[in-house]
Amino acid sequence: MHVNGKPTRTIWPAADGRSVEIIDQTKLPHRFEVATLRTRADAAHAIKAMLVRGAPLIGATAAYGMWLGMMEDASDAGLDEHYERLHETRPTAINLRWALDRMRALLKHLPVAERVENARLEADAITEEDVVLNSAIGDNGVSLIHEIANKKPGEAVNILTHCNAGWLATVDWGTATAPIYKAHDAGLPVHVWVDETRPRNQGAGLTAWELNNHGVPHTVIVDNAGGHLMQQGAVDLVITGTDRTTATGDVCNKIGTYLKALAARDNNVPFFVALPSPTIDWTVSDGIREIPIEERAAEEVTHLTGQTSSGGIETIRVTPAGSGAANPAFDVTPARLVTGLITERGVCHASADGLASLFPEKAA
Amino acid sequence: MHVNGKPTRTIWPAADGRSVEIIDQTKLPHRFEVATLRTRADAAHAIKAMLVRGAPLIGATAAYGMWLGMMEDASDAGLDEHYERLHETRPTAINLRWALDRMRALLKHLPVAERVENARLEADAITEEDVVLNSAIGDNGVSLIHEIANKKPGEAVNILTHCNAGWLATVDWGTATAPIYKAHDAGLPVHVWVDETRPRNQGAGLTAWELNNHGVPHTVIVDNAGGHLMQQGAVDLVITGTDRTTATGDVCNKIGTYLKALAARDNNVPFFVALPSPTIDWTVSDGIREIPIEERAAEEVTHLTGQTSSGGIETIRVTPAGSGAANPAFDVTPARLVTGLITERGVCHASADGLASLFPEKAA
Repeated sequence: MHVNGKPTRTIWPAADGRSVEIIDQTKLPHRFEVATLRTRADAAHAIKAMLVRGAPLIGATAAYGMWLGMMEDASDAGLDEHYERLHETRPTAINLRWALDRMRALLKHLPVAERVENARLEADAITEEDVVLNSAIGDNGVSLIHEIANKKPGEAVNILTHCNAGWLATVDWGTATAPIYKAHDAGLPVHVWVDETRPRNQGAGLTAWELNNHGVPHTVIVDNAGGHLMQQGAVDLVITGTDRTTATGDVCNKIGTYLKALAARDNNVPFFVALPSPTIDWTVSDGIREIPIEERAAEEVTHLTGQTSSGGIETIRVTPAGSGAANPAFDVTPARLVTGLITERGVCHASADGLASLFPEKAA
Repeated sequence: MHVNGKPTRTIWPAADGRSVEIIDQTKLPHRFEVATLRTRADAAHAIKAMLVRGAPLIGATAAYGMWLGMMEDASDAGLDEHYERLHETRPTAINLRWALDRMRALLKHLPVAERVENARLEADAITEEDVVLNSAIGDNGVSLIHEIANKKPGEAVNILTHCNAGWLATVDWGTATAPIYKAHDAGLPVHVWVDETRPRNQGAGLTAWELNNHGVPHTVIVDNAGGHLMQQGAVDLVITGTDRTTATGDVCNKIGTYLKALAARDNNVPFFVALPSPTIDWTVSDGIREIPIEERAAEEVTHLTGQTSSGGIETIRVTPAGSGAANPAFDVTPARLVTGLITERGVCHASADGLASLFPEKAA
């Protein structure tokens, strides 16, 4: 999507043919900086320290990380080592494992001498496919927005989203935002309620930033506000992304998603989840019991970083020195609270049958 | 409760007999500072700028504000003027109007010459009564904690609370925290999950600070985390305060309370609301339609204040410059989601019948 009027992606191979460039998302929304990944360790660090985040972008970065790793050591031992170091960076997003599995499955049967070039080609393919998948999600989801717009001519369609499932979470388009960008680009009046998404503020920092750059009307709210807005009729539709969706339609996503799903249900607001199929974990059926929830550092809760009035970047503590904090990064929204799943193949019911209807070759 | 080991209240008449002292809560948790209110305008500012906050403390401050006003102008016109200026400071908390009505009802029938002294005596009475009411709430609520403790001997009772309905929100004891302090002081093992409560972080800044000072085990979490913790069985009980409760048991409280009530219901976690009876608005029956919800400044969402690593206090912006924000300060939890109300007269069902059983003289 657009940054300063120029089409931009979140990750791309650098001109030197030996490295990868990314937007350093830890600097947003205050600085737009590009970082270079030269080694597998750079790629692992970028994922772990969240220079890149969002399930699809984590997958693409891991794929390029395997390529960078092949340039360092393309042996079988190296292949396993790169896989492990990249896999251990984040436990929840399933695209990470999906991308690594795909890379390893291809590379391990190739002669060592052919691995570097093929790793690059496969990472490129994963990246391009992500753009195609997300664009298709947009095409499939935009009809939901059209339907609402037709019922309230002349008024904006109010869409609430949580965290950043925008183009910054993918290679381009985003998942939850793809239908929104398609609607906006088609001239439909949309307005987005942006949950700030504590503790890391991916809504306030990233979703607001990208909507702002693309010119989509939006308003930032605290995570506490969505239920009240739904009670007041100010939300027509909720669309979120997901880090892992079970074969039964349970949705693991950024902490707090579950609370919005409960409020949507209580107020008869449609609650949709947008996802490319690599985000589906066909091996898991009970999201609440089976998906590992990443516990991140307490400092993400106790401290915040932002821009001071003089333009500098400062980190402040918001809790008393003696108080500890817990920081579970994701929660699971049971399928019963999800109105539907928006995938690259169409919209389906959040259930084993619904997913099987779109992905018969994957369903058990 | 205790600050640095010393019993402390949130508001008290100063030794000079002409002013009132308060804890300046905008400085917490990083600085413990006492501010002096010398005029009615000082009192109004303290409420509006949230040097004091919390429905009961707002009521007590307004009562002393009327006393300060009487010292400036004790005429009938002055009485009306003081009432209006204090009343317009905050629209949602009902205790404000309750305290002002009580002061005006007393003062308007007194000779002008007797108004100053009687205003002081009545403000003192409102303040002392608040302490007695909250202590009684504690006595009535502690049995709920005892019941849970009996079912899990040797384990801590995990209580989640939202915002600050602690002693800092009242004159002493707090409302939601009164049962917790009584349980802790009685040796029951309690642990409190403290919602940080964006946008003003009264949980992270105030509840954590006061629990820390009183030695009650606690953990700060982002507002997004409570639903997940309930799903995982990590919450035994939710207790919140309220800024206004309808005669039918709807609970208006800090924005986000409704989301926690939904999660509690979805996970069979008891959801109790603690309140002194002045917080009940007997004139309102539909909380969602009838209670005015204060819309506060966008800067409370876009900016945060805290302590830097060098010990200074700094304000940072967390959103992009081009993004606006909305800031509704309260929401309404329908009575159907509330397990019970803890009042100074006992615990009752959140319904017109429940409230009437405890307050027959007030019910219609």
